[in-house]
Amino acid sequence: MLRATANVAGRYLGRAAMADGLQQNQGVPVVSCRRQELALSAPMMPPHLPSGLPQPPHDIRTNVADALRGFFRDRASLVEPVGTEFRSAVTHLEDFVLRGGKRVRPTFAWVGWLGAGGDVDAPGADNVLSACASLELIQACALIHDDIIDNSRTRRGFPTIHVEFARQHRDQGWGGDPESFGEAAGILIGDLALAWADDMFHGSGIGTEAHQRALPVWAAMRTEVLGGQLLDIVVESSGDGSHGSALKINRFKTAAYTVERPLHLGAAIAGADDALIAAYRTFGADIGIAFQLRDDLLGVFGDPATTGKPSGDDLRAGKRTALLAYALETADANQPDVAATLRSAVGTELSEADVDSLRSLIISLGAVERVEKQIADLTERALNALDASSARPGTKDALHAMALAVTRRTY
Amino acid sequence: MLRATANVAGRYLGRAAMADGLQQNQGVPVVSCRRQELALSAPMMPPHLPSGLPQPPHDIRTNVADALRGFFRDRASLVEPVGTEFRSAVTHLEDFVLRGGKRVRPTFAWVGWLGAGGDVDAPGADNVLSACASLELIQACALIHDDIIDNSRTRRGFPTIHVEFARQHRDQGWGGDPESFGEAAGILIGDLALAWADDMFHGSGIGTEAHQRALPVWAAMRTEVLGGQLLDIVVESSGDGSHGSALKINRFKTAAYTVERPLHLGAAIAGADDALIAAYRTFGADIGIAFQLRDDLLGVFGDPATTGKPSGDDLRAGKRTALLAYALETADANQPDVAATLRSAVGTELSEADVDSLRSLIISLGAVERVEKQIADLTERALNALDASSARPGTKDALHAMALAVTRRTY
Repeated sequence: MLRATANVAGRYLGRAAMADGLQQNQGVPVVSCRRQELALSAPMMPPHLPSGLPQPPHDIRTNVADALRGFFRDRASLVEPVGTEFRSAVTHLEDFVLRGGKRVRPTFAWVGWLGAGGDVDAPGADNVLSACASLELIQACALIHDDIIDNSRTRRGFPTIHVEFARQHRDQGWGGDPESFGEAAGILIGDLALAWADDMFHGSGIGTEAHQRALPVWAAMRTEVLGGQLLDIVVESSGDGSHGSALKINRFKTAAYTVERPLHLGAAIAGADDALIAAYRTFGADIGIAFQLRDDLLGVFGDPATTGKPSGDDLRAGKRTALLAYALETADANQPDVAATLRSAVGTELSEADVDSLRSLIISLGAVERVEKQIADLTERALNALDASSARPGTKDALHAMALAVTRRTY
Repeated sequence: MLRATANVAGRYLGRAAMADGLQQNQGVPVVSCRRQELALSAPMMPPHLPSGLPQPPHDIRTNVADALRGFFRDRASLVEPVGTEFRSAVTHLEDFVLRGGKRVRPTFAWVGWLGAGGDVDAPGADNVLSACASLELIQACALIHDDIIDNSRTRRGFPTIHVEFARQHRDQGWGGDPESFGEAAGILIGDLALAWADDMFHGSGIGTEAHQRALPVWAAMRTEVLGGQLLDIVVESSGDGSHGSALKINRFKTAAYTVERPLHLGAAIAGADDALIAAYRTFGADIGIAFQLRDDLLGVFGDPATTGKPSGDDLRAGKRTALLAYALETADANQPDVAATLRSAVGTELSEADVDSLRSLIISLGAVERVEKQIADLTERALNALDASSARPGTKDALHAMALAVTRRTY
C-alpha cells in the first residue's frame, strides 16, 4: 500500500515530467497498466474511424460539421424575417457549434449505428448522420447554459456566449446592466440550440420506424443529463461530499449523456436487438463514468498546457468529485484533522503552493490510486461487455480505441 | 381630433370607473366600438367551447391539464433513478405547469384542428389533444426563463421558480450564493420543460403523416418566439423606440407563438388545405398583434386588481411598446420637450403621481387612440379573413369569441 502510494505520488507529482524539464505542478498523469490493452499509448479521439470499420466519404468530424452547417443554412428562411439582431445571435451560435469540440457524442452514436448493422452506402446514411450530428446542438445548449451557471469567462479559447454579449452591450453603450443582458442572451441562445437539436433530430428523415425506436432514447438522454446537472448544482451547494452522489452525477450527467445513450441511439436507429443494446449500455455507462473519473483527475493534476484549464481548477471551484470524496472518506476514518484541512481548503482561492499541498494530501490518502483502479476496472468491464457482444468486429475495434481515448486522455 | 382625444382621456383616466367609486388611476379601458361584434361585452377565454362546436368530453382546459398530468406521470420512470433532488425539481415544474394559465395556445391549436375537419370522436383525438397540450411546456420554459431575465419575483401569485430555489438554498444554509443557485435551477428546469415539450409533442402519436406536416410549423413556432425574445432584449437595452421594432416583437414573440402558429399547427395536423392555413395565419397574426397591443395598454392603464400587476408596470420597466413608440413619434414631431420628458421618465422608479402624469401625456399625444384603432382594424381584418375561410361554422364562432376575448380583456 505504502509502496503503491509512493509510486502514484511519483507519477502524479511529476517526477517523469520534471525529468523533461517541466515544473512539478505540471505533472502529467501516466496510466497504470492493468491489462495489455491499457498499456497502449493513449490515442486521441480518432478523427478517422479505424481502418477495419466502414468509412464514410470523409471523416466523421468533417461530416458532422457539414451536417450542422447545412442545418444552419436551411434555417436562414426562418431567421431572416426576424431581422438582423436575431441573425447575429444565430451566427454566434453557429460559430460556437462549428468552432470545434471533439464530436464525442455524434461519433459514439454513429459508431453505435454502424456496429448494429448500419450501412454507410445505403441511401439513408446521410439522414442517420444528421440525427447523430444533432447531439452537438444539445451539447451547445448544455455548454452555453453551464457557462452562465458556472460564470465561466472563456470556452475553447473564446469568450463564452454570455460574456460576448455583455461585451457587445458595453461596446454599444446600451442602457441597463451589461452582465444581465449577456446572461439573458445566453439563456435564449442556449434555448434556441436545444429547440434546434430537436428540430434537427426529428427532421433528420431517418424513417418512421427508426424514429419511433429512437424516441424513448432521445427522451431519456435529455432528461438524464438535465437531471444530472440539477443533482450536480444541489450537491455542490449542499456540500454533500459522498462518493455515491459524485458517482450518480457522473452516471447521469456524463456517462448516460456522453456514451451510453448516444450508442443506444445509434443502435435503436439501426434496429439492434436487446442483447446488443444491453452490451452497448453497459459499455457506455462504464466508459462514461471512467471518462468522468479521468476528467476529475485532470481537474486536479492536469497540465494546463494540454487541458486548457488553470492548474488545480476543480480544487479552487470546490467541485464535489469522486476523487475528493474518496480522499475525504479515508481522512474522516483515519485522520480527522486532515479531513478538516481538506474541507476548509477546497472551494477557496488557492495559491499554486496550496494546490500542490492539496495534491500531495489527496495522493497520500490513496484517492488517486482508488480512482485509477476504478477507471481500470470500469474499462475492463466495459471492454468485456463489448467483446462478448454481437457488434461488428470493426466497431469493436473502434470502440476499444475510443474507450482508451476517453479514459486515458491528458486533455 | 381634439374631441376624440378628450373622449379617450375620459375613458382611460377612469371617468366611468370613478362613477363606480374607483380611484382615477385604476380606470379600466373600455373598448371603442368599430363594428357590431366589438360592441359585445368582452368574454373571458371560454373554458367551454361555444355550443356550436363539437365538444370534447370535458372542457378543453380540463383536458389539457389531464394530458399534462398524464405526461408527468409517465416521466416518473425516467426521473426516479436520478433521485430525490431531481424528483423535487420536477414536482416544482409540474406544479408550475398545472397551476394554471389560460391555456390559450393549446386551445387555439385544438380549435384550429377542429375547424380544419378534426373529429373529436375519432380514436386519434386524444393524441391530437396531447400534441396541443405540449405547447404549455414550451410556455413553461418561456415563463421560467423570462422570469430570470426580468428578475421577476412572483408569477400567478407564487414565487417564481428561481426565487423559490433561492429560498430553498437559503433555508438549508447551503454554501455559495442563493440567488445564483436559484438562477441555475431555473435555467435547468426551464430547459427540462423545453426538452419535454418536444418529447410530448413528438411522442403524441398523431400519426406519421400528420407529424410530418406539423414538423415545420413546430420548428417555426419555437424559432420565432425565441427570435422575438432576443429582439426584445436588444430593443429594450438599445433604447430603440421605433414602433416598427415594437410591432416586429409583437409579431414574433407574441402573435406567431400565441395564435398564428398554434392554429397553423392544428390545421397541419388535420391536413388542412393551403387556403385555410393562409386564412388561419392572417387571423392569427392580426389577432396576436392586437392581443399584444391590448397587453401594452393594460401595462400602462390596467387595473392592478384585475391584471395582477402593479399599476403602470410597463412604464417603470421601460418596456418599448408600440404605445410608447407612437407617443414618442408624435412628441418628436411636435413637442420635443415633451418627448424628452417621456424618454427620461420611462424605465425609472415612478411614483403613482408620476405614472398618472405619464398616462395623461400618452393619451394627449394620441397614442392610446392610435393603438385602439389599430386593435380594432386588426381585429376586423382578422375576422374578415376568418369569415371568408372554409373553417367549420362552429369554429368560426369559437374563434370570433376568442378573438374578442384576447383583444378586449381587462386582465
